[in-house]
Amino acid sequence: MKTRIGVVAPSCPIDDAVAEGVTARARALYGEAVELVFHPQCFLSAGHFAGEDHVREAALVEAANDPGLDAIWFARGGYGACRVAAGAIARLGAAARRKTYLGYSDAGTLLGGLYGRGIGTVAHGPMPVDIRRDGGEAAVDRALRWLVERDPASLEPGLDGERPAAAFNMTILSMLIGTPLQPNLSGHVLLLEDVGEYHYRIDRTLCHITSNPGIQAVAGIRFGRVSDITPNDRAFGHEADEIAAHWCRVSGIRHLGAADIGHDAANRVVPFG
Amino acid sequence: MKTRIGVVAPSCPIDDAVAEGVTARARALYGEAVELVFHPQCFLSAGHFAGEDHVREAALVEAANDPGLDAIWFARGGYGACRVAAGAIARLGAAARRKTYLGYSDAGTLLGGLYGRGIGTVAHGPMPVDIRRDGGEAAVDRALRWLVERDPASLEPGLDGERPAAAFNMTILSMLIGTPLQPNLSGHVLLLEDVGEYHYRIDRTLCHITSNPGIQAVAGIRFGRVSDITPNDRAFGHEADEIAAHWCRVSGIRHLGAADIGHDAANRVVPFG
Repeated sequence: MKTRIGVVAPSCPIDDAVAEGVTARARALYGEAVELVFHPQCFLSAGHFAGEDHVREAALVEAANDPGLDAIWFARGGYGACRVAAGAIARLGAAARRKTYLGYSDAGTLLGGLYGRGIGTVAHGPMPVDIRRDGGEAAVDRALRWLVERDPASLEPGLDGERPAAAFNMTILSMLIGTPLQPNLSGHVLLLEDVGEYHYRIDRTLCHITSNPGIQAVAGIRFGRVSDITPNDRAFGHEADEIAAHWCRVSGIRHLGAADIGHDAANRVVPFG
Repeated sequence: MKTRIGVVAPSCPIDDAVAEGVTARARALYGEAVELVFHPQCFLSAGHFAGEDHVREAALVEAANDPGLDAIWFARGGYGACRVAAGAIARLGAAARRKTYLGYSDAGTLLGGLYGRGIGTVAHGPMPVDIRRDGGEAAVDRALRWLVERDPASLEPGLDGERPAAAFNMTILSMLIGTPLQPNLSGHVLLLEDVGEYHYRIDRTLCHITSNPGIQAVAGIRFGRVSDITPNDRAFGHEADEIAAHWCRVSGIRHLGAADIGHDAANRVVPFG
């Protein structure tokens, strides 16, 4: 039976080269058994975004509600999902509830909102745009193997299969705290990663996240890679791993070690729940 | 009767020149009738901060609980107040409840936490470090005139004296959302400002703030200056005032116009409540 994967871009656009590269990987792995359906919206541009808000929302709703698609793969992050997430999620129907959703970074806004409402199977993992990274074909292959056949080799290796899990970009999770899109993560192992922030912002973001009573109910946090830290005019004085340890200690949340996720080609898949 | 104002630095340090400049302004305005008491902690440096967490917390607690001080003036922002706010506030006693607290930017973490617990008179306004700005003496004079004699000319001119008000740096308020330090701002006119952020982050921060049910209970928002916007590799496509209007429209929060606050020498005083 053919697997059909819809690609939409709720944040920023991709270009034809990304679509062609990812399509070539799907063909190499699965031939005609997998079809990638790139919504034309993926290639639009309106200021920062892959089309105006109503256009991105409509594409997401159309693809998610399409009974002929098995999965929705978010094309890339950037920024913009929060402008369409609540509106789109409110419009999802029965077909959307049977689907799988995969993405990370800014797409975490949607992962959180969907998971919080129990819509579909939600996972944090590589996106089509990752084909542009060094070694990006491996990231795309890893995502496809999970989307198509739930290959256990794609999974983040520390998942124990017993406790529920969830994964987020720290900054994106911070922006969900205290909003209707914040999911209940009680008892979950929470995996966090980030990219392109100052040390002081990583610290501030973790202060925020770990101060929230809902997050304090997690089973523990595992820390993925915090990459491309922005140089500041003041040296912070603590590295990212010390910052993580600090906020776990202060909040009483268990620090469960490292996680193999991040803004890089090695980013592994973390299914929610 | 002499007014004694304690200065502490819960975030980043100041130097002697700031203390001397501000002391000279207090003397010029009030002679011997006003004494500025710079806690030695203001001049410490430990990585990013004006001393280690426990040192900054101890200085704040000591000054706030000192019955011989009438007011606490936060020396500057930067980053760091969130690492000491909850711990310090839990240790405040009767003398702290009779005091006035003034600051902005990162100090908003303390303003929010103090106001939420009904501790003292809390206000958003210029800090000692503002003496370094072009025209900074006017900012310092404005703050002193409010601290010492509640000069109405120091106040943000749109305050109506009827509805309660509160003012925050947007990013700092965002980091309080969903935490025990988030104050109840129901029925308040909320004034917001920000500095040194990308357009997309201003947008994301306002999405976050305006999505919170507690913030949706405000009487409305007035927008101060959003300055030094960081250039991005993608033009955002909307200016800060359009972003503000967008999120008020989406959230149903009333947009009550402009506010005369910001990271500049013109920043006016906004007493909370």
